[in-house]
Amino acid sequence: MTATREHLSQTIIEAGRFLYGRGWSPATSSNYSARLTSSEVLLTVSGKHKGQLTTEDLLAVDMDGNSLEPGKKPSAETGLHLQIYRWQPEVGAVLHTHSVGATVLSRLTLSDSLVFADYELQKAFTGITTHESQVCVPIFDNDQNIERLAAKVQPWLENHSECVGYLIRGHGLYTWGAKMNDVLRQVEAFEFLFECELKLKAVQPR
Amino acid sequence: MTATREHLSQTIIEAGRFLYGRGWSPATSSNYSARLTSSEVLLTVSGKHKGQLTTEDLLAVDMDGNSLEPGKKPSAETGLHLQIYRWQPEVGAVLHTHSVGATVLSRLTLSDSLVFADYELQKAFTGITTHESQVCVPIFDNDQNIERLAAKVQPWLENHSECVGYLIRGHGLYTWGAKMNDVLRQVEAFEFLFECELKLKAVQPR
Amino acid sequence: MTATREHLSQTIIEAGRFLYGRGWSPATSSNYSARLTSSEVLLTVSGKHKGQLTTEDLLAVDMDGNSLEPGKKPSAETGLHLQIYRWQPEVGAVLHTHSVGATVLSRLTLSDSLVFADYELQKAFTGITTHESQVCVPIFDNDQNIERLAAKVQPWLENHSECVGYLIRGHGLYTWGAKMNDVLRQVEAFEFLFECELKLKAVQPR
Amino acid sequence: MTATREHLSQTIIEAGRFLYGRGWSPATSSNYSARLTSSEVLLTVSGKHKGQLTTEDLLAVDMDGNSLEPGKKPSAETGLHLQIYRWQPEVGAVLHTHSVGATVLSRLTLSDSLVFADYELQKAFTGITTHESQVCVPIFDNDQNIERLAAKVQPWLENHSECVGYLIRGHGLYTWGAKMNDVLRQVEAFEFLFECELKLKAVQPR
Repeated sequence: MTATREHLSQTIIEAGRFLYGRGWSPATSSNYSARLTSSEVLLTVSGKHKGQLTTEDLLAVDMDGNSLEPGKKPSAETGLHLQIYRWQPEVGAVLHTHSVGATVLSRLTLSDSLVFADYELQKAFTGITTHESQVCVPIFDNDQNIERLAAKVQPWLENHSECVGYLIRGHGLYTWGAKMNDVLRQVEAFEFLFECELKLKAVQPR
Repeated sequence: MTATREHLSQTIIEAGRFLYGRGWSPATSSNYSARLTSSEVLLTVSGKHKGQLTTEDLLAVDMDGNSLEPGKKPSAETGLHLQIYRWQPEVGAVLHTHSVGATVLSRLTLSDSLVFADYELQKAFTGITTHESQVCVPIFDNDQNIERLAAKVQPWLENHSECVGYLIRGHGLYTWGAKMNDVLRQVEAFEFLFECELKLKAVQPR
Repeated sequence: MTATREHLSQTIIEAGRFLYGRGWSPATSSNYSARLTSSEVLLTVSGKHKGQLTTEDLLAVDMDGNSLEPGKKPSAETGLHLQIYRWQPEVGAVLHTHSVGATVLSRLTLSDSLVFADYELQKAFTGITTHESQVCVPIFDNDQNIERLAAKVQPWLENHSECVGYLIRGHGLYTWGAKMNDVLRQVEAFEFLFECELKLKAVQPR
Repeated sequence: MTATREHLSQTIIEAGRFLYGRGWSPATSSNYSARLTSSEVLLTVSGKHKGQLTTEDLLAVDMDGNSLEPGKKPSAETGLHLQIYRWQPEVGAVLHTHSVGATVLSRLTLSDSLVFADYELQKAFTGITTHESQVCVPIFDNDQNIERLAAKVQPWLENHSECVGYLIRGHGLYTWGAKMNDVLRQVEAFEFLFECELKLKAVQPR
């Protein structure tokens, strides 16, 4: 195992412990990845307990999603990770999580995006420097056909280079960044804002 | 103690630590079991702190619920566990938990079942491969007469071999699987979905 | 220090760590006690961090609330603890906690008691064997004059030997039992039921 | 490093671990400080993970906000900390946190202050001895221009020497005290009361 792979493996394993511990990757859901080289990505295999990952639960793939490791089959959602690495060369890590907040809020929001405004915590997203900005998070309908889902995500990414993450309805969050710590910071910020929005909705007249 | 019993005891003790830690087995509630052989089951005795179980707190019974250990008396709910082991020979473990979510949602649902639909996390249940499925969870009224309660559960099980769990109103959840890890994954998925449903209800117009 | 005092001190210190950890004794609130002998009680002194108690933070008093330790002054609420020990000789420990649930529910309940019904978890209270019982928890208005408050509690205790706990409005819970583990189990059960009641109220039409 | 600085650094690092662990300083938000001398204050530099602070992440400034350490630049919010140290010489520590509760409640409150009344836990604030008091917490609109924000805070502080903390709308809480433990106790009390108010609002008719 190369030093890079060993380091990135450890990074993914620790991210899993954190995200599972917070309840954002329950019941073997979620998948995580990190860029190994310009043409290879390290991904979690599907169906594993995300708080108990080992280096065995990781798999290298090429940019077309082909397994580079005999006997390990990439998960169906690999295509959504690779799409992001192909979109922006500076992306070094992608996290896909399944929290209650992401699930509920994406189901409650009937329009095709969620907009965060007037939260100081928006500044935790890369590129945002003031609460007076608006952070727009697109919501795509869930689809077990990942290729079809990716085809809906693609034009949005192409038109929004500033995008920091997206939701799949009733399913979860995708977010990314240069380094794993940046992505973890963004997951925390997203979950914070999801919780705020849900609490606001629970109190406001309806 | 046989190697199997020692292994299963440890599995139950660790399940208790996890479930108590998550708040799903509070105040000495809940009971857990694992299949020892085709004709014997290992169960928790009643009234113990579920986060602090020891091998002393476990008891082997036969398929009719008779204690195989002099001096240890099976709990009243043993019958509900055995019913599931008799129903499907592939069941290796059964967990009965008492969470706030299961309690509240089963009280709020006036009809005799709860249906989960359009949640990606439904795929955490054994046999479910798409969010486009419907997971139906029957709810039985609580009854201190366990034989009478089991008699209401029996026809439902016989008619629904795909069933992954059921609720007792104001009381808790029963769920099962081939191995303890499968059952723990299902408990996590149930609790996730209970929380989603409660949050949706708290926000939607009424 | 006698063996009894050392044992009970440890019991109180561990109860504090647990209760603080659960968020039920925040910001140096709460006080705890255990019976040393038929005429002496061990109590926490006021104003201490309940997750970081030491044996120095405990004080023995007689049944009239006089300090038996020069230089340590019993807290104002000592009288409410002693009232319970005088009421029932079998009481060995008393916990007074300040949770969000107890605070909010006692403020929301305009009548002078809260009634739990149809919860399986009612069986966690000493003396309760079925969910078909009703557990009545009186609520007394908060009062900084502890003697006056105790005078309102006294007739209720005298008329309800089955009482398992009471609430002070906007303030917290008093509950007791033969041993500290019994009281901790009851605190868990109360907090579970408070949470259930609040979640039910948040969803039901109003 | 002086003994005082080493001690205060440790105090701030531990406060961060606690506050991050409770979810009150997520996603590298928040800043903390402690008074070194009558003319110097130790502050966290901005953009650090608050659960993983090291002594390198702290910076001494003078009372005008000038860095006393070459190469380290004080964060924009330094001015809000110093304003409090200048206001009351007995203040030894200031915590600025970003919780969901503070964020949501400050957005929901349209008036320019929040008033806590009839909570026993108000007694956790320095100077409060009864639930019959009223604790008034002013709310200032968020502003990325810290000088302008400080200018709005200043008259309020000058007219309310009893003030125990204030909120910035959609942003977070400022609170202070003689020692770090006092400030941590106040943060706990504020968060408890924010949670109570939000739960009350979620249940009350609207």
